[in-house]
Amino acid sequence: MNVKTYNISIKSKGENDMIDLTERVSKKTTESDITNGIVTVFVSGSTGALTTIEYEPGLKQDFPAILSRLAPKNQEYGHEKMWHDGNGHSHVKASLVGPSLTVPIINGTLTLGTWQQIVFVEFDVRSKSRQLILQVVGE
Amino acid sequence: MNVKTYNISIKSKGENDMIDLTERVSKKTTESDITNGIVTVFVSGSTGALTTIEYEPGLKQDFPAILSRLAPKNQEYGHEKMWHDGNGHSHVKASLVGPSLTVPIINGTLTLGTWQQIVFVEFDVRSKSRQLILQVVGE
Amino acid sequence: MNVKTYNISIKSKGENDMIDLTERVSKKTTESDITNGIVTVFVSGSTGALTTIEYEPGLKQDFPAILSRLAPKNQEYGHEKMWHDGNGHSHVKASLVGPSLTVPIINGTLTLGTWQQIVFVEFDVRSKSRQLILQVVGE
Repeated sequence: MNVKTYNISIKSKGENDMIDLTERVSKKTTESDITNGIVTVFVSGSTGALTTIEYEPGLKQDFPAILSRLAPKNQEYGHEKMWHDGNGHSHVKASLVGPSLTVPIINGTLTLGTWQQIVFVEFDVRSKSRQLILQVVGE
Repeated sequence: MNVKTYNISIKSKGENDMIDLTERVSKKTTESDITNGIVTVFVSGSTGALTTIEYEPGLKQDFPAILSRLAPKNQEYGHEKMWHDGNGHSHVKASLVGPSLTVPIINGTLTLGTWQQIVFVEFDVRSKSRQLILQVVGE
Repeated sequence: MNVKTYNISIKSKGENDMIDLTERVSKKTTESDITNGIVTVFVSGSTGALTTIEYEPGLKQDFPAILSRLAPKNQEYGHEKMWHDGNGHSHVKASLVGPSLTVPIINGTLTLGTWQQIVFVEFDVRSKSRQLILQVVGE
């Protein structure tokens, strides 16, 4: 049994940008020589999130759009009264989707479906550099 | 330390079907002989999701109903314009709830509450056969 | 490789209370002597949830408020017709946010961002004593 740690650096293009991480996570998993186990992908930061989705232009719009209906930008947030950084809605959406995703590895391969990609979603109001952490645990 | 992999095959009855996996996950955990660790349950596919809930007839309706209010079927999705498969809303809901659930195992037992079951929720628009992956990591 | 188990006992102050667990999880992680791995934090129970958020007074209000808009208390729930315990909306919100959070540990430190705390959110309608489980897996 072993633990291997990797970082993935990305730069989002701004609010609601969705970035496909599948190939990068898959490559690091292969590098780890761990053939059976799990990989936890984690974003350090409170205005971005991780999930899986079919990564195609339609859903790249649809997923953030539905979340923006739930937590619209143009309403009052307690966070704003305090911090005036214009991203109260970003925090709410990021906490709902969550900062962490764990995917099994079997025979050296992520157990994703064919139309299922690992994605980072930027909920903050501007382009940001992001450090993602990959923790691979297994044998 | 060890890793044990199991598959659970299920067939959902259609949109918003919720299936209790607790007994099946519990049985596989016992089979693994791993008494302390974690089990990650994962759905390969982008229109179903995993969470825990009190599995009873009321919430079987309530949980999907509330999500359908957030992402209703009868609106425009970018996904539809492209793919015409009528399940844009399914993808959005599945990505929000998430494809992965990790539960601790202590003394050979899942640490679920008495009224807390592990469930798969079908968000796609028809009955589907699903392969769930269980990755048990521990000692 | 090793597995270490810890319990954290908390008492929520009532509906929508949010409790910062970061220091307690961090302390237990240090106690575990596991310097590289993952920690899974899990709530046994179906009306509370775990996520990360910037823990400050504004978001302590904003996050539960947005979720209460999605699943309001004052509507009909199938759960209510059956059980009459007034917490159908609590279950829906807890299942959506999720009972489980997995965070990497690198060099003995949780990989959280500076403004990113691990929180428990009470969605039930009254103050409750809660047992949280920490499962630390690594080396």
